[in-house]
Amino acid sequence: MAKKSKVLPIYVLSGPNLNLLGLREPDIYGRTTLAEIGQMMARRAKNHGLSVVFRQSNHEGELIDWIQEARTKSAGMIINGGAYSHTSLALHDALRALDRPLVEVHLSNPFAREEFRHHSRISPVAKGVIVGFGAQSYVLAVDALASLIKGSTG
Amino acid sequence: MAKKSKVLPIYVLSGPNLNLLGLREPDIYGRTTLAEIGQMMARRAKNHGLSVVFRQSNHEGELIDWIQEARTKSAGMIINGGAYSHTSLALHDALRALDRPLVEVHLSNPFAREEFRHHSRISPVAKGVIVGFGAQSYVLAVDALASLIKGSTG
Amino acid sequence: MAKKSKVLPIYVLSGPNLNLLGLREPDIYGRTTLAEIGQMMARRAKNHGLSVVFRQSNHEGELIDWIQEARTKSAGMIINGGAYSHTSLALHDALRALDRPLVEVHLSNPFAREEFRHHSRISPVAKGVIVGFGAQSYVLAVDALASLIKGSTG
Amino acid sequence: MAKKSKVLPIYVLSGPNLNLLGLREPDIYGRTTLAEIGQMMARRAKNHGLSVVFRQSNHEGELIDWIQEARTKSAGMIINGGAYSHTSLALHDALRALDRPLVEVHLSNPFAREEFRHHSRISPVAKGVIVGFGAQSYVLAVDALASLIKGSTG
Amino acid sequence: MAKKSKVLPIYVLSGPNLNLLGLREPDIYGRTTLAEIGQMMARRAKNHGLSVVFRQSNHEGELIDWIQEARTKSAGMIINGGAYSHTSLALHDALRALDRPLVEVHLSNPFAREEFRHHSRISPVAKGVIVGFGAQSYVLAVDALASLIKGSTG
Amino acid sequence: MAKKSKVLPIYVLSGPNLNLLGLREPDIYGRTTLAEIGQMMARRAKNHGLSVVFRQSNHEGELIDWIQEARTKSAGMIINGGAYSHTSLALHDALRALDRPLVEVHLSNPFAREEFRHHSRISPVAKGVIVGFGAQSYVLAVDALASLIKGSTG
Amino acid sequence: MAKKSKVLPIYVLSGPNLNLLGLREPDIYGRTTLAEIGQMMARRAKNHGLSVVFRQSNHEGELIDWIQEARTKSAGMIINGGAYSHTSLALHDALRALDRPLVEVHLSNPFAREEFRHHSRISPVAKGVIVGFGAQSYVLAVDALASLIKGSTG
Amino acid sequence: MAKKSKVLPIYVLSGPNLNLLGLREPDIYGRTTLAEIGQMMARRAKNHGLSVVFRQSNHEGELIDWIQEARTKSAGMIINGGAYSHTSLALHDALRALDRPLVEVHLSNPFAREEFRHHSRISPVAKGVIVGFGAQSYVLAVDALASLIKGSTG
Amino acid sequence: MAKKSKVLPIYVLSGPNLNLLGLREPDIYGRTTLAEIGQMMARRAKNHGLSVVFRQSNHEGELIDWIQEARTKSAGMIINGGAYSHTSLALHDALRALDRPLVEVHLSNPFAREEFRHHSRISPVAKGVIVGFGAQSYVLAVDALASLIKGSTG
Amino acid sequence: MAKKSKVLPIYVLSGPNLNLLGLREPDIYGRTTLAEIGQMMARRAKNHGLSVVFRQSNHEGELIDWIQEARTKSAGMIINGGAYSHTSLALHDALRALDRPLVEVHLSNPFAREEFRHHSRISPVAKGVIVGFGAQSYVLAVDALASLIKGSTG
Amino acid sequence: MAKKSKVLPIYVLSGPNLNLLGLREPDIYGRTTLAEIGQMMARRAKNHGLSVVFRQSNHEGELIDWIQEARTKSAGMIINGGAYSHTSLALHDALRALDRPLVEVHLSNPFAREEFRHHSRISPVAKGVIVGFGAQSYVLAVDALASLIKGSTG
Amino acid sequence: MAKKSKVLPIYVLSGPNLNLLGLREPDIYGRTTLAEIGQMMARRAKNHGLSVVFRQSNHEGELIDWIQEARTKSAGMIINGGAYSHTSLALHDALRALDRPLVEVHLSNPFAREEFRHHSRISPVAKGVIVGFGAQSYVLAVDALASLIKGSTG
Repeated sequence: MAKKSKVLPIYVLSGPNLNLLGLREPDIYGRTTLAEIGQMMARRAKNHGLSVVFRQSNHEGELIDWIQEARTKSAGMIINGGAYSHTSLALHDALRALDRPLVEVHLSNPFAREEFRHHSRISPVAKGVIVGFGAQSYVLAVDALASLIKGSTG
Repeated sequence: MAKKSKVLPIYVLSGPNLNLLGLREPDIYGRTTLAEIGQMMARRAKNHGLSVVFRQSNHEGELIDWIQEARTKSAGMIINGGAYSHTSLALHDALRALDRPLVEVHLSNPFAREEFRHHSRISPVAKGVIVGFGAQSYVLAVDALASLIKGSTG
Repeated sequence: MAKKSKVLPIYVLSGPNLNLLGLREPDIYGRTTLAEIGQMMARRAKNHGLSVVFRQSNHEGELIDWIQEARTKSAGMIINGGAYSHTSLALHDALRALDRPLVEVHLSNPFAREEFRHHSRISPVAKGVIVGFGAQSYVLAVDALASLIKGSTG
Repeated sequence: MAKKSKVLPIYVLSGPNLNLLGLREPDIYGRTTLAEIGQMMARRAKNHGLSVVFRQSNHEGELIDWIQEARTKSAGMIINGGAYSHTSLALHDALRALDRPLVEVHLSNPFAREEFRHHSRISPVAKGVIVGFGAQSYVLAVDALASLIKGSTG
Repeated sequence: MAKKSKVLPIYVLSGPNLNLLGLREPDIYGRTTLAEIGQMMARRAKNHGLSVVFRQSNHEGELIDWIQEARTKSAGMIINGGAYSHTSLALHDALRALDRPLVEVHLSNPFAREEFRHHSRISPVAKGVIVGFGAQSYVLAVDALASLIKGSTG
Repeated sequence: MAKKSKVLPIYVLSGPNLNLLGLREPDIYGRTTLAEIGQMMARRAKNHGLSVVFRQSNHEGELIDWIQEARTKSAGMIINGGAYSHTSLALHDALRALDRPLVEVHLSNPFAREEFRHHSRISPVAKGVIVGFGAQSYVLAVDALASLIKGSTG
Repeated sequence: MAKKSKVLPIYVLSGPNLNLLGLREPDIYGRTTLAEIGQMMARRAKNHGLSVVFRQSNHEGELIDWIQEARTKSAGMIINGGAYSHTSLALHDALRALDRPLVEVHLSNPFAREEFRHHSRISPVAKGVIVGFGAQSYVLAVDALASLIKGSTG
Repeated sequence: MAKKSKVLPIYVLSGPNLNLLGLREPDIYGRTTLAEIGQMMARRAKNHGLSVVFRQSNHEGELIDWIQEARTKSAGMIINGGAYSHTSLALHDALRALDRPLVEVHLSNPFAREEFRHHSRISPVAKGVIVGFGAQSYVLAVDALASLIKGSTG
Repeated sequence: MAKKSKVLPIYVLSGPNLNLLGLREPDIYGRTTLAEIGQMMARRAKNHGLSVVFRQSNHEGELIDWIQEARTKSAGMIINGGAYSHTSLALHDALRALDRPLVEVHLSNPFAREEFRHHSRISPVAKGVIVGFGAQSYVLAVDALASLIKGSTG
Repeated sequence: MAKKSKVLPIYVLSGPNLNLLGLREPDIYGRTTLAEIGQMMARRAKNHGLSVVFRQSNHEGELIDWIQEARTKSAGMIINGGAYSHTSLALHDALRALDRPLVEVHLSNPFAREEFRHHSRISPVAKGVIVGFGAQSYVLAVDALASLIKGSTG
Repeated sequence: MAKKSKVLPIYVLSGPNLNLLGLREPDIYGRTTLAEIGQMMARRAKNHGLSVVFRQSNHEGELIDWIQEARTKSAGMIINGGAYSHTSLALHDALRALDRPLVEVHLSNPFAREEFRHHSRISPVAKGVIVGFGAQSYVLAVDALASLIKGSTG
Repeated sequence: MAKKSKVLPIYVLSGPNLNLLGLREPDIYGRTTLAEIGQMMARRAKNHGLSVVFRQSNHEGELIDWIQEARTKSAGMIINGGAYSHTSLALHDALRALDRPLVEVHLSNPFAREEFRHHSRISPVAKGVIVGFGAQSYVLAVDALASLIKGSTG
């Protein structure tokens, strides 16, 4: 089974408003679009022998559906929950049931922003968290996740 | 009208991640699947001369749509709001407008778990609450709701 | 031992001011007296092959004495702690040491009342909680407890 | 019925540690003993054509028993709940069910003392509150209660 | 000096909106006007050999001016700070510097009303507090104050 | 009586520092002076067949005096309480006793400013609230108030 | 570009349960239906030379999709977020990225209702807020928005 | 008088559920019974020329009665208030009036347990506190109290 | 303009109860009267080539009127807001609009007194704060203000 | 290994300002110097066959260095963290890694002092706590620690 | 002794990061270096016949050592605790034991900065506080301290 | 200058108790020692053409000294503040003045541990944060920092 799971893709989910990347408040979120980040991640994952399923939704329920799907169809997950990170217990519960290595990312550093962004419902159920490096956060997360997957299956 | 409403079914709604029942954290939620609970409830409701509409969704908006539907199409409701129970004012408002007997259930006992599960936005608008008896919570809820419906219409 | 405990009675304890049932604020607590509830429970318990020890006290200490007594003399307990539910750590400790299936009940739905009734010191040490169905709460609790006793001994 | 209730006595209840009056911290509570206060009140009540039932207990449950007794046996009540004033929801509930004019008194002014004495669970269910005048608080309370009884029955 | 202070009048100050008494929300504040209360108090004070200076203002600063005046011109004070009771540290400071027996009164029972009326900035610097008896609160306050003045000078 | 009240003017009260309008922090409050706003409102009110009494004060007590005056002399009120909005229970009480349609306005949007401006003691006793449109807030308030007056008297 | 944006419609979005308008709790929300409000707004907008896109959803994600659409397809927005107003950081973020004049409306006055309705996540990113005037709130919002659009483009 | 008080016994009071010692949760409270602790203390006290009055009650009121008794009948007190330690202002008041050296003990270390056990109403009125050493806590308390009694009388 | 403003006086405002200086609680506030402080300041200001306008009021509104006056008539301000310092947002707003160097002073050290004196609404809009040196606080404030005026105009 | 650790000394660490013992606030901390306490402890430890390493530092870092040293060089530790007890998570972490029996002591009873001394970061990682008996606290701690060491090794 | 203490120097202590003065964030802290401030203070102190011991440390423990040294070697102290002002109870305790006139200074006005700088652990044990005047704060502090030393010894 | 700064080393600082890595609680912190992490980082940095200065201290003041040193001697910094992360405003201030790219790391995921580890004083002044990947956190931080240095200088 460990062997088999190596060939499963990693799921990369992005939450509400992240489809506006590159358009919305570029001084906070940078000018790279989400599509470009997807391409960067696919390249990086390939280096680790991994493929990427890359999705975005503004719908909390759809994100939960995808997390549930990933329970059997993925080798691990990288998630940027957007604003749902700070409020969604439903995402928290879905991720707790994921049973796959999980990395949380944010483009900006939420701890340097408004108080209500300092607390994430996702962080306590993630293995690790990487924030503040813009698009680079996602790329580092691929490295981190690859290493976790190797660790848990290798 | 009272007569007519007797033949309306009861709505049983389950919120996010409850479709994972039997798979997710069985030591908290037990090994019975949601489908099996649906069958147990149907049988029990039949004893009371009632039928059951049994639905689950991870989407807050879909749950609200169904609650609105139940305003005219149901004789009463049993709801397990899952994690939305603790955060959703929108569910609270929808249920307040339901105008039908309402029973809240939980499989586990939320008061014996994390602090953030101690407060439910649904409880104040429910007639009564039954928690902690696993699948049995749902069956007891059918008895309770049947008795409420009889009381309000009989 | 499992066999023997089957013939032990269930203890049903009611806390302060519950002796006023049927007299005090009938629109909140209903018109059934506590004695009538005792009779309803005895009948229901008999269906499950169980007998009932039914007591009420306004004295926190006496309730604790009874809970300690129930450690060896009962098969399980149903408790309505009344106002002590919200404040008594001593009841909490006594019930934690009970080591028997425990069901908490309330006649009214405390979550639809004053803030200070939203938190119960008993709930976290109970197996399950049933509130809001008036005298019916107690009857449902007998069903729930019978099922728990069977589960733990059968 | 209004006529009959006129001849019922008024109940004056004192809570924990008030039996130490005159002995405990005289600079806060004065040097008059509780028995002397009882005599002052009896004399004052007599002026209003009223008699006094005067009791003290350190036991919360006993105070509740007496309040319940007063539901049918008294024309009104004056209560100094002592330290239970600040913590006892059970007293609160018992007094709410009293259905007789109720006056809360304290010898000292709790608002000039420790923070935890600023909040009384009795105040919201009393008609009025008189604090800070030492033994005189009780005498003023007799006047106030007599006037309330007259108002509600005369 | 003690002798002399006996002939000084007592000051009775009423704060904002109390001039509306008898007009504003009569189910909370009763139908007696402030002028009528002034007359009741004058009569009662006369029984104790005291006269009354009776004033009302909607202006916090004017109330402070009067309290300062009372430092040398009064034998004691009765104050109903109205809504300023709950917010005014300036009144608190002025009254702390009064150096005369001080009784706080309220017509209604603030502890049975909104949360923001539960805390008075005046209470901690008063000798005693009388609330909830309508116009009768003021009359009882005259008795209480007369007794305090006698105690401190007699 | 309904007829008569139609010819009564509407009262427009402005609280502390609003006399500095056009001078103080123009990027928050704009460059229109209070006098100019008064003229805009008079014109607009005339369209609805209404006249305007337009006053400003830095004195909380004076504002209360005017609100009390408006109980009999106005058909309705528009108020910008300035900083008193956030702290004054006395204004709250006065307005609760006003018994006339009441509209609260602010030039700036307080919810986009410091935390202490997010809570208004006036809002809960107003019929409606209009904020954030600069001088236009006042003009919209005239329309809203005219419509309320018509509704309550027409 | 300013010219072009004049011909774009204004978006009017209504959140969860607002489709029940006229049916749900009419003493709070009035008897006008949402469709009727839509028609009133269309007429009013026409007066300002504007057209209206009028939509309602119970789905948070769908509201976000529409707000993102409005970034390029609308001249401005009026939003009643319903219960999501009080909890949704995701709506907050979407609206912050809207870059069009934004007016928040509510039918009832949330500040006169439960505590949890006093805080809106939408208010800090709106230009202005209009609440409490029932269907009239929406009509006033059209006037306010028209004036903002003119101001920013005229 | 100092001489006389030497021959008075020390009072050792144990609060609710401590009679279960050795039975209840032995990994927290150890396996020594309360009776055995009483014997250990009697032996140790004898070394210091002191005798022990050793009592336990689940009744708050009875504990208060005993503390009042100890005002004249004991040379000092050791108390383990059990769960009442964390909630009982009445015990706090009784102990403040004790006027004898007072040592608080706990078997377990409350600071390493649930949050609600971190705060004791007894600690501020005790001379010293000894917690966490199981039955040994009581023995050390005898040494400490003996030394305090000697210090205050010797 | 810089030249001209040099010859403007400095305004020294004192808030409620400060007219009692030397009389009220001398162990906190010292025995120097406010008039004497005014003379000390005038002498000190003269050394810096400055004159002093020295005023006290118990009226919040009057203080605001004077602060507004000082916008054009003063070179800078020293203010001791008394108890209004801790509560008055209206003073805060007025001082924020002052646009002149501002120094806050207190005779006593508020941080060594009751909790409610630890927070000043004036401090965040002052350039600097000097507290705790009695009358000397005012004199140091003259030096500080003179230096600020020189800095901003010299 | 158990044998070997018996001959290891016990470490007694005192935190900031404890070197001032006997000099600083003698009515709180007594007149015994720290050196004298060291000698008392050495004598007492000798009775148990133990030696003492006795150190004090005002430097948080140095205390941590010593705690780390004690991981291999001591049989157990007694610590009075002084003011660092209430704030230092770094001490907390160091002590959690100590892996030796640990007793916390304080000379005074912190629970009878300022609020900020009621919470110790050391208590939750100590085996037991002894406070309030002055120098005697340290001596009792030697007895307690000796008994713990014997228990864990004997 | 009073005479002798006149010739003792004053200690001026600066806490963490103040050695960066003139380099770090000059718009908050100004461009004057700490050494230059030392020279300004020495000159000013000389005017008062006083000398200055001027030290800075980033080490909390070293600051405490110096404060203890100052108990016998200084006539008074001026301290800028830097960030330790807001967190260090150990500094608080050391300064409370200082027994010399103490003045707290800050270059910037902490009340106009982040919330966590609004509370100083040093302020309650200082005689007075001077903040916000940049380097001038220190010079004013020398004047203030000189006057305190003269007052306490002259 | 940009060229020159490339050859400066990166500083890697570790706070209190991190020298125990590999020894202390290996299930939380792993079995790799700090020295081994230093070697891993040196190798990784070399790949980016960077060298590493690698230091650990239990002393807050020493960490501050090193951060100040790094202002001129480093190209960027990686810091694991250990327990000081959660409490030290002094570190916060020092890092804010660093003016070099800063990455915060933690071995474990603090958000999955005790509440008091959820808040870091370092995070708001860091560019980005990487936590939860054990020793791998440090290696990823080298990649992240290298990329930041390149970005700011390249």
